[in-house]
Amino acid sequence: MQTELSKRLGVEHAVFGFTPFPAVAAAITRAGGFGVLGAVRYTAPDDLARDLDWMQDHTGGLPYGLDVVMPAKKVEGVGEAEIEAMIPEEHRQFVRDTLAKHQVPELAEGEASGWRITGWMEQVARNQLDVAFGYPIKLLANALGSPPADVVRRAHDQGVLVAALAGSARHARHHADAGIDIVVAQGYEAGGHTGEIATMVLVPEVVDAVGPLPVLAAGGIGSGEQIAAGLALGAQGVWLGSIWLTTTEAEMHSRALTRKLLAAGSGDTVRSRALTGKPARQLRTEWTDAWDDPAGPGTLPMPLQGLLVAEAVSRIQKYEVEPLLGTPVGQIVGRMTAERSVQETFDELTRGFERAIDRINRIAGRDAR
Amino acid sequence: MQTELSKRLGVEHAVFGFTPFPAVAAAITRAGGFGVLGAVRYTAPDDLARDLDWMQDHTGGLPYGLDVVMPAKKVEGVGEAEIEAMIPEEHRQFVRDTLAKHQVPELAEGEASGWRITGWMEQVARNQLDVAFGYPIKLLANALGSPPADVVRRAHDQGVLVAALAGSARHARHHADAGIDIVVAQGYEAGGHTGEIATMVLVPEVVDAVGPLPVLAAGGIGSGEQIAAGLALGAQGVWLGSIWLTTTEAEMHSRALTRKLLAAGSGDTVRSRALTGKPARQLRTEWTDAWDDPAGPGTLPMPLQGLLVAEAVSRIQKYEVEPLLGTPVGQIVGRMTAERSVQETFDELTRGFERAIDRINRIAGRDAR
Repeated sequence: MQTELSKRLGVEHAVFGFTPFPAVAAAITRAGGFGVLGAVRYTAPDDLARDLDWMQDHTGGLPYGLDVVMPAKKVEGVGEAEIEAMIPEEHRQFVRDTLAKHQVPELAEGEASGWRITGWMEQVARNQLDVAFGYPIKLLANALGSPPADVVRRAHDQGVLVAALAGSARHARHHADAGIDIVVAQGYEAGGHTGEIATMVLVPEVVDAVGPLPVLAAGGIGSGEQIAAGLALGAQGVWLGSIWLTTTEAEMHSRALTRKLLAAGSGDTVRSRALTGKPARQLRTEWTDAWDDPAGPGTLPMPLQGLLVAEAVSRIQKYEVEPLLGTPVGQIVGRMTAERSVQETFDELTRGFERAIDRINRIAGRDAR
Repeated sequence: MQTELSKRLGVEHAVFGFTPFPAVAAAITRAGGFGVLGAVRYTAPDDLARDLDWMQDHTGGLPYGLDVVMPAKKVEGVGEAEIEAMIPEEHRQFVRDTLAKHQVPELAEGEASGWRITGWMEQVARNQLDVAFGYPIKLLANALGSPPADVVRRAHDQGVLVAALAGSARHARHHADAGIDIVVAQGYEAGGHTGEIATMVLVPEVVDAVGPLPVLAAGGIGSGEQIAAGLALGAQGVWLGSIWLTTTEAEMHSRALTRKLLAAGSGDTVRSRALTGKPARQLRTEWTDAWDDPAGPGTLPMPLQGLLVAEAVSRIQKYEVEPLLGTPVGQIVGRMTAERSVQETFDELTRGFERAIDRINRIAGRDAR
């Protein structure tokens, strides 16, 4: 499965795998794809350096990339305390009430909440980049907005391609104007932050808008048939995130969450502002329902919502409070029904792709070998 | 573009075109596809007979079908007056206020509202069927729920295949249990009544759920690349509705509406209950905004909403009140930028399909002729 882009990056298959877990990212690269490690959880630069060292040791010189989060709206010069002060008491009480309703225990004294607003601040992302540019990464992806001009320059000076996620042709054109190299066109059905245009419609629109810049198709892709569909839409590769969450290499924080993912159907996700304040697709839970209920106080804008719920989410995860336990994931969660290794998952993708090509050639009346 | 289903129906291309306009349906069939005439607007059986006569004269013996609407929830035994009485005065006042705000003139004395609830009642659909079975239709499609058992039997006795639209694998299994022959898997991005699962995810799920029953991919398909994608997902054909609305043969009730469709982008639709009480994708307008506004009274359930707004919609259409003027249409409205004949539209679809097959074979490293 070779495109101009996959050749340029030196990978066997134009399959890009996004994951927060180094063991998964490395395994995707070893399987012949392009592993992209999500950096948002690395608030300490040393942790990122440790995991990139590990990636180097486990990818055998094959290429991989890093995904950082630099929000379009900067919150520089504003400390966490000042942002905390902007959160209404009504919303804090709603968090307490919702947790109390489900008897969620408190964290122990001094136990840190896992996910903090700091991961979403530009300075943290820049510290991550200072570490990352010390490694031979081949791709730098940005999940929110276009990366700043100096970051794009620095990447290009080091021969690193820059990718950015887009949910509309307008976003994509903005990225192209910012000098990025690859647009990830991510449709409505994707996990995490996502827009309203479905992948089937979005990908060709983005290809038309930014071509000849290469476009990756993202959202709703978890099988070889879906890879074939994404490529048929004009993409130079596909970008898969959700499918790796139930691989055996994934270090999910909770077995109960893995069980929920394996049991969920395609209709069990919701595009909700509950997690970050921006619409992000995730498992639908009693937690998202509470935030999306018109009778409740509703969500706060980014970055307030993320700060407000950070500790609550840690408590829900730590104590595996099933009705509230969720995670960002796309509609393809419905086909994630068994834990398998990354290699098995990848092999099934490439086999399914070949089957889809055979079938569509029969339909098209082509004699294809 | 040949599948088992297209061969069985005797059409050159596995492209099914749904349209409320006989001239469009006949032209789709003549172009080598399978035209499906939407019957919902034919409340008088004679009108349907007249248009099916016309179809017979203009399809040269090539196959075509009919789409009827039989709601899953029957409202038999309840007259229009009794249903009218269930509409709260608050909602009637909201209609009057919204129309007054935009200075929408009244209809003239005796001028009928175009779209009435009756088109959605089973008895009307049955009258349509009595007419339709007198013609050599090859397919009967039902847009809401599974058709009743006796209708399926009657169709099969006459050698007519039965199709039903599904927005989830569960719906699709229900249709299969009802003995239908074809499932139209219609994704979130489609125009008209639609669910929340995007086409990319829905089609393979439905194929898995009801195979070997043939599945058509619907929603987000308006180019040859999108046809290739739909077929790559395992469908035995594609079902296109929106794309025909801006063909030269389409008898739209308003030039202003055609202009709005040509100008709209993929982000200019909304999945709203404003038209019928069930979520249906349509152009986003100040009319849909008013109904979707949490500050307003909100929509009523089907069939009350359709009855409530029928006259208002007729007035908006007749007087071409631009801010309120809308129509059901899918997200592919963004690529509907020029009026062309059905034949030109169809040729562009088949050419784009061949290009997509060439490209994906290059990616797959196949030598395909």
